[in-house]
Amino acid sequence: MTAEPLPEPPLERPTSSTRVSAVVFDGGRRTRRSERLATEEPLEIRVEEPGREQREVAVTMRTPGHDFELATGFLFTEGLIDGREDVRNVRYCAVDREEQRYNVVSVTLAAPLRQELDRNFYATSSCGVCGKATLDAIEAHCAPIGGALRITPEFVVSLPDRLRTAQRVFDRTGGLHAAGLFPAAGGDAIVREDVGRHNAVDKVVGERMLAGALPLSGSVLMVSGRSSLEIVQKAAMAGVPVICAVSAPSSLAVAAAARFGITLIGFLRGERFNVYTGAERVAA
Amino acid sequence: MTAEPLPEPPLERPTSSTRVSAVVFDGGRRTRRSERLATEEPLEIRVEEPGREQREVAVTMRTPGHDFELATGFLFTEGLIDGREDVRNVRYCAVDREEQRYNVVSVTLAAPLRQELDRNFYATSSCGVCGKATLDAIEAHCAPIGGALRITPEFVVSLPDRLRTAQRVFDRTGGLHAAGLFPAAGGDAIVREDVGRHNAVDKVVGERMLAGALPLSGSVLMVSGRSSLEIVQKAAMAGVPVICAVSAPSSLAVAAAARFGITLIGFLRGERFNVYTGAERVAA
Repeated sequence: MTAEPLPEPPLERPTSSTRVSAVVFDGGRRTRRSERLATEEPLEIRVEEPGREQREVAVTMRTPGHDFELATGFLFTEGLIDGREDVRNVRYCAVDREEQRYNVVSVTLAAPLRQELDRNFYATSSCGVCGKATLDAIEAHCAPIGGALRITPEFVVSLPDRLRTAQRVFDRTGGLHAAGLFPAAGGDAIVREDVGRHNAVDKVVGERMLAGALPLSGSVLMVSGRSSLEIVQKAAMAGVPVICAVSAPSSLAVAAAARFGITLIGFLRGERFNVYTGAERVAA
Repeated sequence: MTAEPLPEPPLERPTSSTRVSAVVFDGGRRTRRSERLATEEPLEIRVEEPGREQREVAVTMRTPGHDFELATGFLFTEGLIDGREDVRNVRYCAVDREEQRYNVVSVTLAAPLRQELDRNFYATSSCGVCGKATLDAIEAHCAPIGGALRITPEFVVSLPDRLRTAQRVFDRTGGLHAAGLFPAAGGDAIVREDVGRHNAVDKVVGERMLAGALPLSGSVLMVSGRSSLEIVQKAAMAGVPVICAVSAPSSLAVAAAARFGITLIGFLRGERFNVYTGAERVAA
């Protein structure tokens, strides 16, 4: 069956990067700077099959841009469609709220999906079809995080080495994410590793929960790599007041940290780091 | 309600790292070496609520080790349980097949889940509760990938710079994954960026699918960061014969590449790279 021509996507919105303000700590200096971060927003992928009502297939946290490629590519690489000939049309979906307008893509198909969507799994970090709705959903489960904890820049810059030292598997494989929970008052860290950064965070939180040690109001969570909404969400649930990451946060990680009262630190390398939210917790 | 003491986990199996053999290319030299990679295996998380049959909650691709912490931490950080007092017992689940024995964890709860599992989403890369079953499921959708393509070491080592040059957003944010599709016969690359590596791959595959250019039997897929099962699965669906990554592959990425006839290259930095499978495609 020949596919119809695809309409051009409308002007992209939200954009692929988002401007935020950060406090840069560098040795003894502290300056404020405007920065661009990668935008993170949910994309809901829907399908319309012949003779059947439109339905959701997946929600993925993505950077806006090339959304039609992402939606159709996902359907193809997951074995749900056979190729171009199955795609009749791709469009953004009119939904109730304006802010969701470019976060829902509907793919009209020439044939039914090749596999049934018979799994009834919880879709992590994926509820809501815009960043704001996602944060609302998470907030319903989180206690507000108080502001008592204070940490020094010296403590912050010590964390990457301490995390790396504790990464036992990393030394052998060079390919693992790590999450470490560091008590601000001193004492032993809890470090866990995993191919999935979110799993490493779940492991440290699970360890503390099973030990009856929640909420983690006196500890700093340090993760390898970047911080995303998912990491901030998991930290918020456990009451962690400070998150540090070696690399950049996403736009939605910053928005979530601001909403939940978490200090979010990124680009923590050497003597330097950026504080995106809650800089009042960092003081010499 | 007071929770019962948790039983000790049995000896972990599979282990957190896996030994593989790699061909190391370094300038003009080519040597064979044994290496350890991070193990990637699915973990199925089940719950037993009072007066209700055991049911699946999620499958996550994880590195084995601390599985009880991961299962309970996941339930907590996703808002499905309130804390330690909800957990009565955690155990590995006896299931039909021996190889799945340490990939299914069941959490017995003192109260029902705090949220209903009402979403009917497709769980990507998550079918099967052991690596082998997962590969079997993917193989059912993939055409075998032929061996005609040959690439030179010079072509391979040129890819990281070409990917980086094309990363427009990265230059501004420092926080994005990229996937690039490079025709081996020369010509323009297609590069897409995203906070999710799997999304970047779906975007390049989607672009080619919409252009009617599948299968991608003459192109090399280059990804920033690591390669996991999910990346190899998506490449296999699109008929990509060679995958290159800046960092390490997981154990299951190597197993999948071997099964689907894909050349898998990792630690591609400077003049050096490791070939984990299909080294016959790389020749001077």
